[in-house]
Amino acid sequence: MEDLVHLAYAIDTFYFLICGVLVMWMAAGFSMLEAGLVRSKNTTEILTKNIALFAIACTMYLFLGYYIMYSSPEGGILPSLGFLIGEENTLDAALSGDEDAPYYSMRSDFFFQVVFVATAMSIVSGAVAERMKLWAFLAFAVVLTGVIYPVSGFWTWGGGWLDAAGFSDFAGSGIVHMAGASAALAGVLVLGARKGKYGPNGEVYAIPGANMPLATLGTFILWMGWFGFNGGSELKMSDFDSANNVAQVFVNTNAAAAGGVIAAMIVAKLLFKKADLTMILNGALAGLVAITAEPLAPSAQGAALIGAVGGVIVVFSIILLDKLRIDDPVGAISVHGVVGIWGVLAVPLTNADATFGAQILGIVGIFVWVFAASLIVWLIIKAIMGVRVSEEEEYAGVDLTECGMEAYPEFTKSSK
Amino acid sequence: MEDLVHLAYAIDTFYFLICGVLVMWMAAGFSMLEAGLVRSKNTTEILTKNIALFAIACTMYLFLGYYIMYSSPEGGILPSLGFLIGEENTLDAALSGDEDAPYYSMRSDFFFQVVFVATAMSIVSGAVAERMKLWAFLAFAVVLTGVIYPVSGFWTWGGGWLDAAGFSDFAGSGIVHMAGASAALAGVLVLGARKGKYGPNGEVYAIPGANMPLATLGTFILWMGWFGFNGGSELKMSDFDSANNVAQVFVNTNAAAAGGVIAAMIVAKLLFKKADLTMILNGALAGLVAITAEPLAPSAQGAALIGAVGGVIVVFSIILLDKLRIDDPVGAISVHGVVGIWGVLAVPLTNADATFGAQILGIVGIFVWVFAASLIVWLIIKAIMGVRVSEEEEYAGVDLTECGMEAYPEFTKSSK
Amino acid sequence: MEDLVHLAYAIDTFYFLICGVLVMWMAAGFSMLEAGLVRSKNTTEILTKNIALFAIACTMYLFLGYYIMYSSPEGGILPSLGFLIGEENTLDAALSGDEDAPYYSMRSDFFFQVVFVATAMSIVSGAVAERMKLWAFLAFAVVLTGVIYPVSGFWTWGGGWLDAAGFSDFAGSGIVHMAGASAALAGVLVLGARKGKYGPNGEVYAIPGANMPLATLGTFILWMGWFGFNGGSELKMSDFDSANNVAQVFVNTNAAAAGGVIAAMIVAKLLFKKADLTMILNGALAGLVAITAEPLAPSAQGAALIGAVGGVIVVFSIILLDKLRIDDPVGAISVHGVVGIWGVLAVPLTNADATFGAQILGIVGIFVWVFAASLIVWLIIKAIMGVRVSEEEEYAGVDLTECGMEAYPEFTKSSK
Repeated sequence: MEDLVHLAYAIDTFYFLICGVLVMWMAAGFSMLEAGLVRSKNTTEILTKNIALFAIACTMYLFLGYYIMYSSPEGGILPSLGFLIGEENTLDAALSGDEDAPYYSMRSDFFFQVVFVATAMSIVSGAVAERMKLWAFLAFAVVLTGVIYPVSGFWTWGGGWLDAAGFSDFAGSGIVHMAGASAALAGVLVLGARKGKYGPNGEVYAIPGANMPLATLGTFILWMGWFGFNGGSELKMSDFDSANNVAQVFVNTNAAAAGGVIAAMIVAKLLFKKADLTMILNGALAGLVAITAEPLAPSAQGAALIGAVGGVIVVFSIILLDKLRIDDPVGAISVHGVVGIWGVLAVPLTNADATFGAQILGIVGIFVWVFAASLIVWLIIKAIMGVRVSEEEEYAGVDLTECGMEAYPEFTKSSK
Repeated sequence: MEDLVHLAYAIDTFYFLICGVLVMWMAAGFSMLEAGLVRSKNTTEILTKNIALFAIACTMYLFLGYYIMYSSPEGGILPSLGFLIGEENTLDAALSGDEDAPYYSMRSDFFFQVVFVATAMSIVSGAVAERMKLWAFLAFAVVLTGVIYPVSGFWTWGGGWLDAAGFSDFAGSGIVHMAGASAALAGVLVLGARKGKYGPNGEVYAIPGANMPLATLGTFILWMGWFGFNGGSELKMSDFDSANNVAQVFVNTNAAAAGGVIAAMIVAKLLFKKADLTMILNGALAGLVAITAEPLAPSAQGAALIGAVGGVIVVFSIILLDKLRIDDPVGAISVHGVVGIWGVLAVPLTNADATFGAQILGIVGIFVWVFAASLIVWLIIKAIMGVRVSEEEEYAGVDLTECGMEAYPEFTKSSK
Repeated sequence: MEDLVHLAYAIDTFYFLICGVLVMWMAAGFSMLEAGLVRSKNTTEILTKNIALFAIACTMYLFLGYYIMYSSPEGGILPSLGFLIGEENTLDAALSGDEDAPYYSMRSDFFFQVVFVATAMSIVSGAVAERMKLWAFLAFAVVLTGVIYPVSGFWTWGGGWLDAAGFSDFAGSGIVHMAGASAALAGVLVLGARKGKYGPNGEVYAIPGANMPLATLGTFILWMGWFGFNGGSELKMSDFDSANNVAQVFVNTNAAAAGGVIAAMIVAKLLFKKADLTMILNGALAGLVAITAEPLAPSAQGAALIGAVGGVIVVFSIILLDKLRIDDPVGAISVHGVVGIWGVLAVPLTNADATFGAQILGIVGIFVWVFAASLIVWLIIKAIMGVRVSEEEEYAGVDLTECGMEAYPEFTKSSK
């Protein structure tokens, strides 16, 4: 019997760690996606932002965020600072038969959680690309990953008031993706649009990304990593039902992404007469975001449909945001925010335990908190150090002024 | 005892899912390989094809293909439409002690199978690159992944007549790779060569790929993913013998790829006086294809040799196909088709249960079915919507006309 | 009971294989990192070197190196040739209850080891980039992976004299990384600096890498693969303590990389006034190398600190080596050698079983052996075939002369 507990503990821990590695890999996915969708003159800087934000997220969550998110009294709004990391969870506890005893290593849980917060922050970097100061961005990353995300994360996953209210968000369409998009929206509003994106009479000018293979690679990396993101969120693997559930989550995650691709491709073809690759990539990601709130309850066919709706939404949302002059170079607010809302709202369609009321409460609660807190932080950063590069720097590209090197020094026209 | 069944079920399901993720990742490998080997003006379109075909394959197989492949009466040629997906496999069945009871989640099995069909389709996209209409290609993808591949897949892995005849193909050198290459060959014959590839007096002009790092990345991705492709095909992990077998498959898969690299490099050096990187990359893939039909029985040294023979074959095959004016921009027909045949034929060398007769029967059976069915479908598509872009479009590149965007808008000469 | 042994054997074997796949993936990481940091005219050749060295390493270690490293009498300096690979490890042995009986498949152990030797060799390719003859490099790869690395590897991991002396190097900061850097240093000294790197009056000219997204991708790949590198080196997963340990190693590996990023970014900002991306990438790798010798004993916060020190060291080391006119285009000697020494020396800070004396003995022993043996081999190769390309070839780039193709034929200025 004791040996069985050992083995189950090992399986669940290993499963957590591997899923965590896949989510960590998503950091590379965001990097490549964003590096492919910006212009070459801003590429080094977006790469720098991505690797730096990942490091900051991991460090801030280690020293502060995890304590906030997982060590607070149950049911509350305000988290307390607490305990946990480094604390030994004893074999005795695992063997106690206590339902609440950990059945996997708390360290693997930390590893899984820490890569989630990095995902939330990665969403921001794309939306504010090509005109934000590097160090202003990194300062915001410190606050988002150390405080803002952990507080609203605690509300559901740490046992706070949204959990008590019945809000259901399996792997975080709202808690991670919409939260990241809310912070991004606040940043974009403070920052304003890129020069040359919008004309005086409502014109919207396309600013093509410099490197489509990178953007596609990034999307495939995210698709792959999402199996860990959703699959690991079942939190258990070591018995018959859990194993079936994890497998269902993998199947549904894949089906939703596929549905998103097909839907976005068809919509783009109808609207633009072209198979617009950037829309297709965003369709894949939209499918993934849409299924993230409930990847277990739907059938695989249902998941494909939920993802397809996400793929339709994302195309129209990107067009709409441009009409509203909200300049998001990579479409992050549409993919993670607008489709994230769809994902949260779709939960009650297949999961009888969820209600539309609780889902809307969760959306409003998370959005208001993350948007408002982010807006305040952005404004404070703006007052202290400024958030936007100068017009000359923006025209020349931020790579040379911020990072001192071009991304493709031998290739681009500007280097001639 | 019941707990042990739970744990074994969890291990085998998890093993299947992780192997499936690795195979899914091969879709990114094909994308990068093909994007690296075509010219920049056709890069966005090949990326679009790759992500779209993956989505179509997953969706068609979900709604149709899997039923054809795995729900038919045993021993037959014609599959029937059936049951299965979404059906609960009960704990009772797993606990029954019945040898035929599933010992892993059927959903993980579906996940593993669905990424295989995408692999088969990925092979096609490279061979028809740079001159095929996007939507004609996607229409073909619907039929191949929904019907053609599942029918011949059923013949062996679904318990059809080839399985009964003793055909042995562990992970699919024939069933997946040669099948994909057969469909590609039919497409290339219908399509014709790219403009400027062959001169009037038998000249063969090299058309260099635009991005060697992408092609190399794609090869490494495929190498990595192949551990899932072959390793998962043992279908079981949870006991001593299975674990040893899976480990042997990993070792052999790696050794064969390494052998393919070294052999292709030496042959290229002897023939061309250069370490031709594209031949080396194809050598790696040839080694992998060669070992796929029997990655378990050979010793690691034997596997290196089988892979090395594959690496030699692929170089000569690529040269020969160019002599025959069969224009395959990425060498897919040679890598997956010609070397796939070698892989199937090599099985009896190390596996005493296989016979050359049955292996040849399998090769002929699969080739005739997939080639003939594909040819008919390609011709129908040609009649309805055409398969080839106009000469002007081919000269200008298909990216702008099909997808509306360049892959590298700031880099290439054409964009000046 | 027997069933439990089966399951534990399966878990540990699967864990080994997955960690091995992650380490294999590091080969792609080195390829992309180095391809991004060299100039475009030398990119095809560095890609060729990377895939070829991986194939050579796997093949030499299979036929020779593994026997040297793991089949020698305990405690010695000179290894003997031996047995092992292909030998069946029987279920009886696993079931015997003997402490020394294998509890995982020896084939999975081989797979895990074989990708380590490839890592060591990958370190060399970056340091000698842009001026070494391809075939001279490959000849060296044969000797390093077949003999030099296995001999010093045997000293610790095969039970040789360093192990007996109490040298402690969990996953190989010294045995793998410093060893690779020692071989690289010998090569660089024999080879000399690139033309135009250093001026007559002590000037150091920056030679920017051609492709920053590739370099960043390579770094993320290495970061991901390192979870297998360090995590797999616990060698066991299947009980409570092992699972906790593996999880701790994952957490610490990630924390150290994050610490390296932040430290290198701050130091670069202070020194150069810029967020130098190449320094940041090297900071990530330095953090990973630093924690590799002891990723288990430190707390996560301690690991972040050890990584941060590595990130500081690497920036100053790169500057110092340039002052000494040791031309290392990618910073490999600093990252893997200098920081590798820091990693080995940091072990006694958190692991009470290690002593500074034994650690210094290990550093000196491995360095002297690998450096001296490599120097002799490089000199022999130089005498027989030469190691450096001609001045004209170096100016034109080695891609065309060595590999017969450009990496980016449509993009670069030289191709106009």
